[in-house]
Amino acid sequence: MDIKALVFDVYGTLFNVHSVKEKADELYPMKGDEISRQWRQKQLEYSFLRQLMGKYETFWKITEDSLRYTLKNLKLEHSSEKINALMDAYLHLSPYPEVEEVLTKLRSKRLAVFSNGSHKMLDPLIKHSGLSSLFNEIISVDDRKQYKPTPAAYHYVLDRLELERSEILFMSSNGWDISGARAFGFQTAWINRNQFPVEELGLRPHSIFPDLYGILTQV
Amino acid sequence: MDIKALVFDVYGTLFNVHSVKEKADELYPMKGDEISRQWRQKQLEYSFLRQLMGKYETFWKITEDSLRYTLKNLKLEHSSEKINALMDAYLHLSPYPEVEEVLTKLRSKRLAVFSNGSHKMLDPLIKHSGLSSLFNEIISVDDRKQYKPTPAAYHYVLDRLELERSEILFMSSNGWDISGARAFGFQTAWINRNQFPVEELGLRPHSIFPDLYGILTQV
Repeated sequence: MDIKALVFDVYGTLFNVHSVKEKADELYPMKGDEISRQWRQKQLEYSFLRQLMGKYETFWKITEDSLRYTLKNLKLEHSSEKINALMDAYLHLSPYPEVEEVLTKLRSKRLAVFSNGSHKMLDPLIKHSGLSSLFNEIISVDDRKQYKPTPAAYHYVLDRLELERSEILFMSSNGWDISGARAFGFQTAWINRNQFPVEELGLRPHSIFPDLYGILTQV
Repeated sequence: MDIKALVFDVYGTLFNVHSVKEKADELYPMKGDEISRQWRQKQLEYSFLRQLMGKYETFWKITEDSLRYTLKNLKLEHSSEKINALMDAYLHLSPYPEVEEVLTKLRSKRLAVFSNGSHKMLDPLIKHSGLSSLFNEIISVDDRKQYKPTPAAYHYVLDRLELERSEILFMSSNGWDISGARAFGFQTAWINRNQFPVEELGLRPHSIFPDLYGILTQV
């Protein structure tokens, strides 16, 4: 395995999407967990559905739409003030505890992020986290308007990095993202933070680690 | 509105997918509800993901794969004996209580079903329910290997019925299916059995009813 770049998914992999819970609990006492859970699920669903329907909108728009749906579904107030406060929390998600240490140890390598997020949300998030200088490239599907897990989305990484499929090690906590990347031909490491079963999509990840420390043993 | 055919989605619309609960409760006491809920959610997710990845498999295979995932996720025994028993229950789902009455009242119209299900699962289900004679056509996406909500899937209905988009009234309980059909250009009636909010996908259904009785007021 001749890996020439390490490419990281962002939401759920480097950053904990459920760190919005705190703000949600503040705005809707005791409801933070449920809001966060339904919001994330609907966000992913809307990205899949819009891609299937051929009705692309940015991940920022999808994130707001899915939040609005979630608040309506839970019969909670969905004023633009509250929605804006929660959307702002999405620009300040917490990185997982090991992220900075692992990335710092890998800094001699070529490192990139590759996300469904549009630059409008991705760039401030990474800037706020102080991790910007560690990445050589911030790659967003929004430049091609093709969401993961379509082959066209993963193909954009090849164009940006000017590498072959098998020269890329891709890391994601999202099982569906790993399945898509594996089907496309990347080397894959599934960061299985929640001890889920392997997706039954016919393709196993090349390796599975409970957090990003595992990557250090592999490269 | 000059409607020339009434086209019904199957799973969740004519048949209650959660009628597998009884068999699931028998095999896994007290777990039927959770199995049924997670199974359905994963089944839809896998149909979306396989379409996005360009890795089509039949809905029967997807239904079995999503059941296996669900049982593993809940740390329950997943022997082929138990899986086969639950898959068999999927061929004997219960129609919703008003289905036969409503379809009988509509029998002078051209009626069709249109489903992600492959004929292997759709044909026995409809046969077991005794409703076969009420439908002029049983249309499965499997003939085109394009899942809803892609435009290509809805297009197959036009080819089979030899009609224009606006001549079709499509009914589904699945909000995402209604969004896809609306985006494609069908007339749409959302059978909102669970009082969910309208999907935040930018397209409202033409009409919304709590069950199929509402259709009788419209045609």
